[in-house]
Amino acid sequence: MNFERPNIRAMEGYSYGEQPSDAEVVKLNTNELPFPPSPKVAEVLQNFAVASLRRYPPALANDFRDAAANLHNLDRDNIIATRGGDELLRLLFTTFTDPGDVVAMTDPTYSLYPVLAKIQDVTVTQFPMDDDYRPLENFAQQANQAGAKMTFLVNPHAPSGSLLTADQIAQFADQLDSLLLVDEAYVDFVSPEHEYNCLELVNERDDIIFLRTMSKGYGLAGLRFGYGIAHTNIIAPMLTKTRDSYNLDAIGQAVATAALLDQEYAQSCWQKVREQRQRLCAALRHRQFKVAPSEANFLLATVPESGPDANTYYLKLKRRNVLVRFFNVGGLDNKLRISIGSAAENDTLLACLDEIRAGHTD
Amino acid sequence: MNFERPNIRAMEGYSYGEQPSDAEVVKLNTNELPFPPSPKVAEVLQNFAVASLRRYPPALANDFRDAAANLHNLDRDNIIATRGGDELLRLLFTTFTDPGDVVAMTDPTYSLYPVLAKIQDVTVTQFPMDDDYRPLENFAQQANQAGAKMTFLVNPHAPSGSLLTADQIAQFADQLDSLLLVDEAYVDFVSPEHEYNCLELVNERDDIIFLRTMSKGYGLAGLRFGYGIAHTNIIAPMLTKTRDSYNLDAIGQAVATAALLDQEYAQSCWQKVREQRQRLCAALRHRQFKVAPSEANFLLATVPESGPDANTYYLKLKRRNVLVRFFNVGGLDNKLRISIGSAAENDTLLACLDEIRAGHTD
Repeated sequence: MNFERPNIRAMEGYSYGEQPSDAEVVKLNTNELPFPPSPKVAEVLQNFAVASLRRYPPALANDFRDAAANLHNLDRDNIIATRGGDELLRLLFTTFTDPGDVVAMTDPTYSLYPVLAKIQDVTVTQFPMDDDYRPLENFAQQANQAGAKMTFLVNPHAPSGSLLTADQIAQFADQLDSLLLVDEAYVDFVSPEHEYNCLELVNERDDIIFLRTMSKGYGLAGLRFGYGIAHTNIIAPMLTKTRDSYNLDAIGQAVATAALLDQEYAQSCWQKVREQRQRLCAALRHRQFKVAPSEANFLLATVPESGPDANTYYLKLKRRNVLVRFFNVGGLDNKLRISIGSAAENDTLLACLDEIRAGHTD
Repeated sequence: MNFERPNIRAMEGYSYGEQPSDAEVVKLNTNELPFPPSPKVAEVLQNFAVASLRRYPPALANDFRDAAANLHNLDRDNIIATRGGDELLRLLFTTFTDPGDVVAMTDPTYSLYPVLAKIQDVTVTQFPMDDDYRPLENFAQQANQAGAKMTFLVNPHAPSGSLLTADQIAQFADQLDSLLLVDEAYVDFVSPEHEYNCLELVNERDDIIFLRTMSKGYGLAGLRFGYGIAHTNIIAPMLTKTRDSYNLDAIGQAVATAALLDQEYAQSCWQKVREQRQRLCAALRHRQFKVAPSEANFLLATVPESGPDANTYYLKLKRRNVLVRFFNVGGLDNKLRISIGSAAENDTLLACLDEIRAGHTD
């Protein structure tokens, strides 16, 4: 028998990047930090009161919420802690979109959004971007005309890394009728010289929510911890109604809080990523790759027209134990998305690219 | 502005039992194990490779699924690992019920089910039980007539602890048209003499799913780990489509697997709970409480007609730092649900009950 709902039966699941268990792989395909998490994390695990696990965890993760509120100069009521950014995205659909509704996003964008839309039986309408991966000027107007209930922006954008300014975000929110998600999964890697900070918008308006994650900037993809930042009118229904009652385990809450509080360590990691980003971008351009300017911890690189195609690069890199991301869809199928690795990982990548370009026939 | 869906706007969130942070409280209100988890859990945390947290966790939790499959003599494809039993319940609604559908359950039952139904905009129809908290003979027929898409049984039943036999479950599934969830959150505490085991049903039929949790029997409520057991036709869509892509963190997977594998420790805990259950049941009956026979780690006790009412007992126990569960709803409002504590905790409870019965005026 098949008890699946028609929309579930018809859909395919999210196609995530490869996650090999082999620690020897140079893994530049899913945008993890190339450094371990804060040393405070090990301390938390060493000192964790194991017997306390028999009791339910703090339901609302208030210690973490307080730490995040303090970091961003906001109130606890502006924060919801979630199982990675993914849970926040799911909760947005569950709480704010009815089946049959329309949501708007750019093309390309984070490929999980349309999957979550299908689960909720919501229609996705996507609008093209300009050559620099910025939304077209009429994006808000088009989303409004489509009757969008929710609109998704990734900033810095994925998979390109392009950055909209805080003024552009505020202006876009002004033009838009719907709730706006700004997915700031990669915001930690933005160069400080941009002075990018949109968060004070949540004190001014209750139609915008920002997504943050511990997976990228804090080296904790394995922990599944993220958070949402918004006016309490948006936070409260997810916090008190649609969230699984105890969505975050006790160990995860302690680890995430410790990592968030260790800003000195986190910021030193981000700075190293920025330095490597600059170096890798220059090295790829030197090799005739076209690289979009990126404020994230990855680069979207168009392979040179003369030479192997992107899929061939991807496969030949993989054979050399270097994983990058190849999206086999129109507009991206001549590109590779390459996460910024450590200096040594980036050296390995560049050496492998040179081998492949030199025409080794493996 | 209020962007909430109408069904979310109209609903109230799940009302969970109190979770005081004070470790001194004798906490007999949310059915945790009165013992710490397996010593293997501390070993896992001590030896955890912290640097590995920067990478995504195993997406499908296959080590845990293999351990569970081996324990139950089934295949990995019969198992889905989830964030506590709660995530499995949510996934069942998401995957198998459309908004507007009807689901069937007993009255009383686990109070989370109707909340999850409201989130999915699904209608709940509840059917009364007999005086021994067993479903009436026509339950399946009534669920069929109501057009139920999914039917919920808790076995052993909550909040009474009554047990249906494996034959009764199989017969019920035979009569039922819909998908059947059998919530076995408390199955670990069933006396071995009953030889209760329904799991081979998943090899025979693809319209039944069993819920298990590490929260109760394994002393890991703080970890948020559970699993579902069913035919792969039921498991696969939740595993590959509707589940959050990385729903279980790397630490939790390692901890849960170690705890599940330590069956010797777990079973010794269950046996101690059974002994305390027998003792506490006798002691309560000796004090003129009517206690339903329970195969779970709690007792549903009707307070004596002469003396304080149930709410008064609850409040006076709370003032003495002893928490039990009082449900202020018809049919349960003359009862207390009391989790089985350690011998010392049960001693404290009984002494407090005696004080309250003796008419102390605090």
